[in-house]
Parts: sequence; structure tokens; C-alpha cells
Amino acid sequence: MNKMLSALPFVMTLMSGASANQEDSLLSSVLYRPAIHFSPLKNFMNDPNGLIWDQSTQTYHMYYQYNPNATVAGNQHWGHATSKDLFHWEDHPVALNIGSDGALIFSGSAVIDVNNTSGFFNGSSNKNFVAIYTRALLNGTQDQGLMYSTDGGYTYTPYSGNPVIDLNSTSFRDPAVQWHPEWNKWVMTVALSREHKVRFYESTDLKNWTRLSEFSAGIYGVDYECPNLTPVTDVDGSKKYILFVSINPGMPLGGSATQYFIGDFNGTTFVPEDEATRLLEFTKDNYALQYISQGSILNGTSSYGSNAFIGWVGNWQYAQNTPTGSWRSAFTLARNYSITENVYGQRVIAQEPLNVETLRIDSESISSNVSLGSNNTEHKIELPVVTTALELIIKGNYSSLPSDAAPGQGRFNLKLANDFNEYVEAGLDWGSGNLWLNRDNLTGFDNPFFTGKFSTFTDVTNLDFNWRIIVDASVLEFFADDGITVGTMAYYSSIPLTNLILESPNGENIDVEVEINPLAKSMNRTTIFG
Amino acid sequence: MNKMLSALPFVMTLMSGASANQEDSLLSSVLYRPAIHFSPLKNFMNDPNGLIWDQSTQTYHMYYQYNPNATVAGNQHWGHATSKDLFHWEDHPVALNIGSDGALIFSGSAVIDVNNTSGFFNGSSNKNFVAIYTRALLNGTQDQGLMYSTDGGYTYTPYSGNPVIDLNSTSFRDPAVQWHPEWNKWVMTVALSREHKVRFYESTDLKNWTRLSEFSAGIYGVDYECPNLTPVTDVDGSKKYILFVSINPGMPLGGSATQYFIGDFNGTTFVPEDEATRLLEFTKDNYALQYISQGSILNGTSSYGSNAFIGWVGNWQYAQNTPTGSWRSAFTLARNYSITENVYGQRVIAQEPLNVETLRIDSESISSNVSLGSNNTEHKIELPVVTTALELIIKGNYSSLPSDAAPGQGRFNLKLANDFNEYVEAGLDWGSGNLWLNRDNLTGFDNPFFTGKFSTFTDVTNLDFNWRIIVDASVLEFFADDGITVGTMAYYSSIPLTNLILESPNGENIDVEVEINPLAKSMNRTTIFG
Repeated sequence: MNKMLSALPFVMTLMSGASANQEDSLLSSVLYRPAIHFSPLKNFMNDPNGLIWDQSTQTYHMYYQYNPNATVAGNQHWGHATSKDLFHWEDHPVALNIGSDGALIFSGSAVIDVNNTSGFFNGSSNKNFVAIYTRALLNGTQDQGLMYSTDGGYTYTPYSGNPVIDLNSTSFRDPAVQWHPEWNKWVMTVALSREHKVRFYESTDLKNWTRLSEFSAGIYGVDYECPNLTPVTDVDGSKKYILFVSINPGMPLGGSATQYFIGDFNGTTFVPEDEATRLLEFTKDNYALQYISQGSILNGTSSYGSNAFIGWVGNWQYAQNTPTGSWRSAFTLARNYSITENVYGQRVIAQEPLNVETLRIDSESISSNVSLGSNNTEHKIELPVVTTALELIIKGNYSSLPSDAAPGQGRFNLKLANDFNEYVEAGLDWGSGNLWLNRDNLTGFDNPFFTGKFSTFTDVTNLDFNWRIIVDASVLEFFADDGITVGTMAYYSSIPLTNLILESPNGENIDVEVEINPLAKSMNRTTIFG
Repeated sequence: MNKMLSALPFVMTLMSGASANQEDSLLSSVLYRPAIHFSPLKNFMNDPNGLIWDQSTQTYHMYYQYNPNATVAGNQHWGHATSKDLFHWEDHPVALNIGSDGALIFSGSAVIDVNNTSGFFNGSSNKNFVAIYTRALLNGTQDQGLMYSTDGGYTYTPYSGNPVIDLNSTSFRDPAVQWHPEWNKWVMTVALSREHKVRFYESTDLKNWTRLSEFSAGIYGVDYECPNLTPVTDVDGSKKYILFVSINPGMPLGGSATQYFIGDFNGTTFVPEDEATRLLEFTKDNYALQYISQGSILNGTSSYGSNAFIGWVGNWQYAQNTPTGSWRSAFTLARNYSITENVYGQRVIAQEPLNVETLRIDSESISSNVSLGSNNTEHKIELPVVTTALELIIKGNYSSLPSDAAPGQGRFNLKLANDFNEYVEAGLDWGSGNLWLNRDNLTGFDNPFFTGKFSTFTDVTNLDFNWRIIVDASVLEFFADDGITVGTMAYYSSIPLTNLILESPNGENIDVEVEINPLAKSMNRTTIFG
């Protein structure tokens, strides 16, 4: 951490009177704190829970798995924050507390029971919130419970009839509940984790649940977690469903990650349209995503999703060891998703960060046309460091690559670097049709599970490429191929990354349009830039 | 390469009169040359083809994808080697040559048509070899062709009626043919690559083929390749089938790798027993495996497999860029595989290197009991460098780990190191139940797709672990959990790794039994140790 001290004297004023360890922790807490990604004020956060849009107050509610007492997992509660735009989040007191039975509050979802189907409320109201969550009992059992809120989702009371579903199982968790107007019922998607099954239940009152069917496929790993069934509009306008299933551990890259299935749901059964196993990302730091429910509007015409999710930027292999000091973990930006086709005609989802444009500080944007070639193999641009969050839009074109380019030809590197030779890198190898992300060349975090190099195939049909990168202190979100190729990556440099370096290492001609958009800080947290 | 020059003066005698580039190439060719793994004498090798045991001559035949003219892929032929024991291989001239039509010889299999079902031969003979391979035509079409050999597999003649199956497809390849005595027919397993389908055909004469069924599941990636359907005996004695499917690119770790399915085959259709996608390894350097056919014994009672395969140690992301000088790529040792259950009750295959014991030089073995702890966090053992190939058997026991060990507790590191601070590492994190392999700390090869860190979950039910590692110049095969957890890893150090270092980085008490078995060189190739 000494390098950081010498390089950033202005942060030292934060540390008067602190011990060396306190200095390190304080520095890390500040250095790695995202400016537009949600992170907990302090202590440990994991899965997003109960994501819901309350139309009556024009407010998003976000709950999250939270340990209020430590920077590691355990003692799980539901933390709570609200936002009007999914960027500016207001902290609220813990919403779901551990009761006298000591049962921990594991993941789940929230609904607005506008028409009081549950009977918890005094008639219809948009303030009728119900949280459906997993109770992790002291004896190891996991069952499904309810808490209800009469104040629009701020304070909750446990249902005296809990649990509402009990299989006497130690591996039964993460209920995601939605109202389906076409069948006039609530449907729950929940994991029989160790059995690698997603089970569906139905209910008309949220208290009495009837088993519908089960689904099992893909990479099993050790545990299924946080299944989410979400309707989407297909490319032909018909309705399809995406079933997201998070796995931990046992994903191919190590630890936890998310897979998904495209298919149909008839109110009873989910039937995938093919036998393919699809991973959400080519990196390993997006877990336990939950989609944002639209909530209910009065008269209950819809509780469908917005086709946007928020995921946890973390991997259980190292999430409790990251060097962020007094707080741990962040969430992805809210991401829209839709069905599309990749270059090989395969049906996949495309993702894009939702409404990032609204944070752009246009007056501080930098646009640049860079022609790389044998006389200009490297081009460096100083980043505008008025904020830690940036959006990079990179449009590249190979003007003179042979059509039979071999692996190793058509190399393009993009580095976000600092003056200590640290950098994160995105790169392209046109000849082999692969791209990569690399966080090996950073010194802020050393962990054997913190994989450095990630790669995947990319669209090399034409001689151009189009990347969008959100970079925010310690969280990077990478989008290529119109959002088909996505990588979320936590990264930890010893000092901030202040330069953008574009390289054509082989001296090949590449024309690059660069747009750097500083993004207005939306999170009320201390960051290195105040 | 200068470091190597200074460290290894004795190899310099090999290089008198060579240019600097020639020196580098020659050094690399020697330094990385495996002693017991098959590698081509020179130029580029990829998929193993036509693996078959000829009982009449007690000889294994191995063909392989081969470019005789360059150290990169292209100009594909079938190279040829034979062995009595799968370790000592004798090189033979290229067996399947490109004909006047210019069609390349892509992957496929070989059978012994003892009873002359094909009519190519003059009656029954154990010398009746038929190779079934993919013809990659100059116009881009891929179809299936035959060549036959009347001299027991050494020289082949193209069938004048080729192709035997033609779909007018550019993505139809890698036929694997076996005789199934219970149905008295040949069955072909072949890939419709870009469609992600394995198709089955049947024939009684190898010339006329009837379509049976198709199978599609798992990770699709871009192309299915080299499907292999192999019978195995299940744990209850019944017959099951394993269907191996190689994928390139698009595997989660980047590039190419192999998945498999467990199921039943009734002579017509393969039906998997569940919907799980299983990967063969947690690393990314074992591709295009083929199982070793038992051939036919006279009277044709069996052509079933031996339950052993050989894979290609390579990944298409970087296989044409590895620093091995005048030759490229190696094969895995022949590996036995069988169905078993992992610690979570999941049905998986276990693998073990076949008959490695037979190469042990007992007089040079080292056994050692090492007690690691707070007073002895590191223990170093000099490796016997009489040969580049070693077998390490590591039995560890945590004598005092708390039952609720947290991630980061119960750390054990094993390093194969040299005096230039280079090492490959295997490690265990008992608290999180993960193990890892790491090749980041080597300087012999730098490539953005050459992933450094690999990890997966491991059995931490009891406080002990049991690893077996084969290390051979530039190829490492790692087996844990009785062969359930397997990683093949190419690695490139600047000088040989001559020390074994065992570490308990937290000072926890770990008792380790170490057995180091030098393995007798079996390959007639120049290695750094002659």
C-alpha cells in the first residue's frame, strides 16, 4: 500500500491518527469504492433480493443479503435501499431482521399484494408489500417464509404461520415469486439446491402453495441457487421465458456463476426450446442475479418483469477476501436483456447497461479518432479523472487485414493503466476470432482463485468491432458484439487507472473511434475523488 | 532465453554454429520435449485418430492429425506410430496421404475388418484395416471417406467409391466407427459441427450407411468435434455408454475443451440418463480425445473399447503459438475412465493414467514424510533430475483444522520450482473446498489466452487429500479425488523445474506423505537430459 501513499498524498488527510492497518483499510475502502455501482455503506453484501418497481411511488426497492456486523458472510439479514433511477440509491435500515428463533434471512423476492390476496392487509393498497424469503433455521433446515409490510416496503412483520413451504430439507432456498395475470395466480420459482432442481409452485394467497413441476439441466455444480423465471418478448413478438440458474461452486471457471435457459412456460411447466447450456458471461464475477419485478399496479394487471436484472459482482471463491476494507461487494448496474441471435445463428440473450446515458457529463466527454499502424503502434489518452466512473465506447476497424488472417494476426489491445505499470486489458485476436479480458497485471489483490485471463469467441464476420466498457473504481463491465459477449470483472489496482492505451502490437492498421464519457457520481459514498 | 543459456551450459554443445533464432528454437525443442508423452518428431500435430489395439500383433496403432511441412495447422495428413505399451512409440511414415484431388485428411477412426465385411480384402485376416476419415475438399465440403490397408495398418489405399457419406455440408466431420457385436453392425458417431449435433449411422459393410438418430446437448460453443461413443461397465455391472463431445471454440475457459454425457445406447439412439452438462477437466488443455478401440479379434466377437482414451494436450487458442521450436503438441498419457460418484452423489467419470507404474524406476524413488506447521511452513525437496518425467503421489492430512474452517483456512501449496523463481503450483483451500492449479509464474510463454489460474471444488469431507501428478517437461497431468478431479496443463518454464516445495502458508499442521517416482524415458526423442 506504500505505493499508493506516495502517489496519492491527497488521500492522506483522511487518515490522520490512524494505525497502519487502519490506514490500509481506510485507503482500500476509499480507493475501491464505486461511484455509480451500489455497494453497502459498510460490511458484507451478497445476493440482491426483492427487486421491485413500485409504480405508485415511482420508486425501486432493492433488498440484499447483508451481514450488518462483519465484512464476511454470515448472520444474514435483508439490507434495504431505494432509488428513483437505479443509480442514486438511498440507504434504509435493515428491512428483514432475524427473529427470536434465530433463523437467518436468506435470499428471496418481494411482491406488492395490491389486492390483498394474502389477507395480511386492510384492503387494497399499493403499500401492501410481501417478502417471500428462505428461513435458514439453526437446525440446518431451509424453508420458505413470509414477512409483510404495510408501509410500502420499509418495515416488515413476520407471518405467524411461517413456514409456508417446508420440505424438512437443508437445501431448499431462494424463492422468486411473481403474479401471472393470465392465470390469475402467484408462481414461485425455487431451488432444491443440492438436487439441482428448480421447482415451481402456485398459490392464490401467497400462504398456500401447490407444487407444479420441476426443471433440471445444464451445469449442476454443487448447488443450484437463485433461480429466476422471467418473461421476455421474443424477436418475433411472441412471449418466451428465460430461466436463470446460479450455480455455486462448480462452474467451469471455478466457484460461482450464472447459466440460463430459453423456453416456454405454460403456467405449470418450463420447457426449454433446446438442450443447450448457456453461460451468462465469459468471466466469473456476476452471481445470483435477480430480475426487477414491475410490481403490481392497482387492479393487478401486471407483475411482469422489466427485462432488467441486477447481479452480485462477486464469486464465492474470493468474495470474502477482497481488499475493500470496511465494506465488501458491489452490484452490477441494472441490465436490460433480450433474446437475439449470435453470428452463428444461435439464440442467446444480449445485455446492456440500463440508462447509463443519463449519467454522462457531456461537457467532459472526450472523442478521439486514432489511426494505429506500423508508425503508431501505441496511442495513449489521459483519462479525465473528475470521477472514478467512465463509459468507454470503442469502435474499431481493421483497414488492411487479409481475409485469411491467422491466429495472432489482427491484434488489438486496450489498456486501462496507471503509472506503476498496472493495467487491466481487453484484447482482440482477429485471426482466431477470440477476445480477452485480463486483470493479471494489477497488484491490489492476490488470491489463487482470482483468475486473471478470460476469453471467448467474438464476431469477426466483418473487419470492425464495437465495445462498450463501464469502469468504476473496482468494477468493470464489458460489452461486445452488441451485448451478446459480456464480462463483469472486479479488479483491484494499487492506485487508480488514469490512462487509456490503445495498441496495435503487430503494427497492423486499425482505425479506432474512442469516446470517453465521464459518468456523474450517483452513490452517496466516500470515494477517492470525494 | 538468455537465462536458460546461463543456467544450462551443458545444452550449449547442441548449438555450435547455430544462429540466435536457431539456438532458441533448438533449445525450446529440447527443453520442452516430453520423455513419456508422445509428441511428433517435428512439425504440428493435433487430434489423435484411429486409436486401435491389434490383438494379433499385440500392437497399438495410433494415427494423428499432422502437418508434415510446418509447425502450425494445415495440410492435414494422418501421421502414424505404433506401440506395445502406449508409452514406447515407434514412428512410421505418414499413413493417410493427400491424394490428387487435394482433399485434406481430417480426423477419424480405424477398424480391423477381420471378416472382410467391406469386401476390400481377400478373405478374413487380422491385417484388414480400414480408416474412416473426413475428406476436407478444396471447395469447402466435408464428407466421409474410407481408405483400406492390407498390411495391418501401415499403408493405405483410398476407396474408389469415396465419399461414403456426403451431405454437401461444410460442417460434417470426425467419424468414430465401432463394430457392435450385439447388433451385428458397424455404428458411426459423427459431428454435424456447426449444428451442434452428434449423428449416428449404421452399416454392415462400411460403405453403405443408414442414418439412425441425432443427439444435441450441453455447451454448444461454435463447433462440435470428435464425438466418441464408448461402452463402459457401470458400478452395478450393467452396461452404460459415455458420449464424449469436443467443442471449439466457445468453452467457458476459452477455446476448446471436452464435455461428456452418461447414458444408454440401444443400437439406434443415445439417451442421456440426466440433463447434466459435464466437463472432462477443470483446465483447458485436453481436446479431441479418442478412445482406444480393442480392434476386432478373429470371429468378430468384440470391437469394444478398452475404457481408455488419449487426448490432445492443446487448446486451439494458442496451440499454434507454443514455444516448442521444431515440433508442436503432445498427447496425454492413455487414461482409463470409469463411472463413479463424487462426494455429492453425482455420477461422473474417474480417470487414471494407465500403467504408469510400469515406468517407475524404483531404485531412484524418494519417499518422505513431511510435517508442516507453524515452525515448518515450507519444506523443499530436490527432485531427482535423471529424467524429465516424474510421478508425484501426495497424501496430505490436516491434523488440527477446525470443523468450521473458513475460506482461506487449511491452505496447502505444492510448487514445482526452479532457481529463477518460476513455479507451477497446485493448491488447496480447505475452508472453501476448492483446489487450484496455477501456471502464471512461468516465463516460457506469454499469450493472452494462456489462462494461468484454474480451480474447482474438491472433496473436503475428511481432513485428508490424495493427489497424483505426472510432470513431464512441458505437460502436467493432475489427478485428485481418486481421479474425479482432473486437470491437464501444458506449461513452459525457462529452465527445468528441479525443486518440489510444500507449504503450509498459514502455519497450520499438515502431515504430508510424499512419493516421487522418476519414470523411465519411453519416447525416442531428444530431451534436455538426452
